Amino acid sequence: MNKSLPGAVLVTVGDELLLGDRADTNGGWLAAFLTQAGFRVQQIMTVGDDHAAIQAALSGAIEAAKGGVVVVTGGLGPTQDDVTREAVADWLGVALRSDPQIREELEVRFRNRGIARLPTPNLRLTQVPEGAEVLPNLAGTAPGLALSLGSKGSQGGWLFLLPGVPVEMRALMEKEVAPRLDRVMNPRPTPPASALIRTSGIPESALAERLEAVLEGTPGIVVQYRPSWEGVELRITSSAGPDALSSFLAEANETLAPWQYGGDGSSLAEAVIARCARVGWTLAVAESCTGGLLGARLTTVPGSSSVFLGGVIAYANRLKTSLLGVEGATLDAYGAVSEPVAMQMAAGIRALTGAQVGVSITGVAGPGGGAPHRPVGTVCFGLVDAQGREVSEQVYFPGGRDEVRERAVQHALRLVYQAALTRIKA
Amino acid sequence: MNKSLPGAVLVTVGDELLLGDRADTNGGWLAAFLTQAGFRVQQIMTVGDDHAAIQAALSGAIEAAKGGVVVVTGGLGPTQDDVTREAVADWLGVALRSDPQIREELEVRFRNRGIARLPTPNLRLTQVPEGAEVLPNLAGTAPGLALSLGSKGSQGGWLFLLPGVPVEMRALMEKEVAPRLDRVMNPRPTPPASALIRTSGIPESALAERLEAVLEGTPGIVVQYRPSWEGVELRITSSAGPDALSSFLAEANETLAPWQYGGDGSSLAEAVIARCARVGWTLAVAESCTGGLLGARLTTVPGSSSVFLGGVIAYANRLKTSLLGVEGATLDAYGAVSEPVAMQMAAGIRALTGAQVGVSITGVAGPGGGAPHRPVGTVCFGLVDAQGREVSEQVYFPGGRDEVRERAVQHALRLVYQAALTRIKA
Repeated sequence: MNKSLPGAVLVTVGDELLLGDRADTNGGWLAAFLTQAGFRVQQIMTVGDDHAAIQAALSGAIEAAKGGVVVVTGGLGPTQDDVTREAVADWLGVALRSDPQIREELEVRFRNRGIARLPTPNLRLTQVPEGAEVLPNLAGTAPGLALSLGSKGSQGGWLFLLPGVPVEMRALMEKEVAPRLDRVMNPRPTPPASALIRTSGIPESALAERLEAVLEGTPGIVVQYRPSWEGVELRITSSAGPDALSSFLAEANETLAPWQYGGDGSSLAEAVIARCARVGWTLAVAESCTGGLLGARLTTVPGSSSVFLGGVIAYANRLKTSLLGVEGATLDAYGAVSEPVAMQMAAGIRALTGAQVGVSITGVAGPGGGAPHRPVGTVCFGLVDAQGREVSEQVYFPGGRDEVRERAVQHALRLVYQAALTRIKA
Repeated sequence: MNKSLPGAVLVTVGDELLLGDRADTNGGWLAAFLTQAGFRVQQIMTVGDDHAAIQAALSGAIEAAKGGVVVVTGGLGPTQDDVTREAVADWLGVALRSDPQIREELEVRFRNRGIARLPTPNLRLTQVPEGAEVLPNLAGTAPGLALSLGSKGSQGGWLFLLPGVPVEMRALMEKEVAPRLDRVMNPRPTPPASALIRTSGIPESALAERLEAVLEGTPGIVVQYRPSWEGVELRITSSAGPDALSSFLAEANETLAPWQYGGDGSSLAEAVIARCARVGWTLAVAESCTGGLLGARLTTVPGSSSVFLGGVIAYANRLKTSLLGVEGATLDAYGAVSEPVAMQMAAGIRALTGAQVGVSITGVAGPGGGAPHRPVGTVCFGLVDAQGREVSEQVYFPGGRDEVRERAVQHALRLVYQAALTRIKA
């Protein structure tokens, strides 16, 4: 990574994060946002709602950010367990004062919701450390705060305090923080040229071996490998400029063609929608153990309605029969989790919806329902494509209920993608 | 929180996390796991794949863990960008040696996958810091490592290095790390009595005001408030023992009854399944803009098949007509995002599946499709319950596509929950 980009350190505050009651989504979102904005994120720290812990994190953060930006999220709410405001004022050695404008806006907001008297705990929201600029929060009640770190250490930099509720934090970053960063820390150096490649169906070490030869011919390129249940993701960064990156990508694309699906960093669902759109296919799903997750994944893609028509969630076996036309005899002979049933589900949803491609999932996601010949994690897939080609598969996925379902969805997407990729051209 | 619990600090390693390319799920999972196991998680740190950053994080972690446990995930893979192993050995001042048993197991594993020669990058996986114990990884290739910190600082403690792939990390925590913690750090003090309450439909500050009086009567109780789009979650902790907690909960439950749904910390989907099961209702869904997400959410609950039959994803309008019986005239007169269409969808899915309760969602999730009278974020709901009662609603949700969809699902769940709660008893 480019050492000359300004640094950024993120501090997410909340006992719920340390107890594992809630996952921190703010750290990752902020990391992507600030990376995009030309910062080098150095560290993400999560600490509890605790004066000393917040202050220790701030001291570490300002050191690591080296004059860049420190963003703290969480602990700005109206209740006694929210102590970020106090901890920061104390750490800076400044007093908190009540801001009459915040108070007025809170009173209006509550009045509009039919609450005549501002509930007392909200008075905490009006407290502002001396010297801080108030960033109005249109999506919630706790405003953000911006502070210059000129007085702390010799390196300067900026400190932003934002509420922990993701939708509020994001709006404040976009509308208030980003324009300030552009003003106070500009021009920033251009981040190094970089690209993301997603692959599926090939292990990390085998990928690395294949790319070794390509890498030898293109100095200045660094490849990072990130395996997950979705496949292996490659982050390619070029310290030799965008041309070196392009020539590496051209060669790599050739080497990786059989496994690569998202050359532009798109998700597999996006790749499926884009490819189906390109070949003019419409798609419908028939889901059992995934309960709608495949449809939900496809429809995360804006504009997916040009390809995806809909489908049936046949969680109960009798819906497999009554809606999808799966034969009772097939269910009896092979069981609901079987390739013959998966094939009939795919054919059935295609007929029912008039979609050109039908894809189905039926499996044992667990924790119950396993059997010796069909353990938890067994999932069957069926696909009938626009050319009438039929594919069925039985796959075993390791992991708990959520993982089995997620992997099954990913596998079904891969089947559709492969079908569209290998379609016989007229 | 109880200060006498042994400490734990988590370090998640990976440039992808700092770039925001991938969300860190390991930190949150480990936090929940170690909290459950009787540790007090002090901090979660995320650093890049960088020698110096990993070593700085380790020094901070060992300090904060105070003789407890430090878990590092990520950076153990076979490729050059994985440097955790080297950074740790260097930090401890010990050499890396190649472990013949790891190598043998890798060769067997690859042979079983039809790869005769171990790809060279995998030799990195056989490297073990002197004095480390190898923790076999049955779900993947990189083994975990356990190290006593006796030699670093005077406080001792244990360091575990685990692969970053969640399914592998989790299996190693459960099968290898947990038994070791029980051996080396036992008996651990009992964590303070604690409970989680979930509420929906009441702001944080109004909750706090209502609970104030209850809190005055029960010393030793601390309430933490966590607002999100799902509602406000309350974590109640008692330093005065489990009896004080019970008596607080009894009073709080009465005060919060209209808004509380998960007294035992269950999700709203779990609460819906449990309550429908209790009143003997079966359920089916008709989804448009959520594309299957409501069904997916309901089926995250193990055993949901006793209540949830399935449904139809009617993403294309013609499926609303052909499968759910929505009248063309209604679509024309009111548009697809309207209460009349939502009502017909709910009635239609009930008739189609034979479920006792039908619930529907149709809305504009964006980014496209908005109109002045029906902006992005407008979602309509329909519900027909087992007693034939009909409810329809139009709600506006702020936020982007994902948030609108998530909030819509949560709202639909709330409608079903309320219907089951207020059903007229025979």
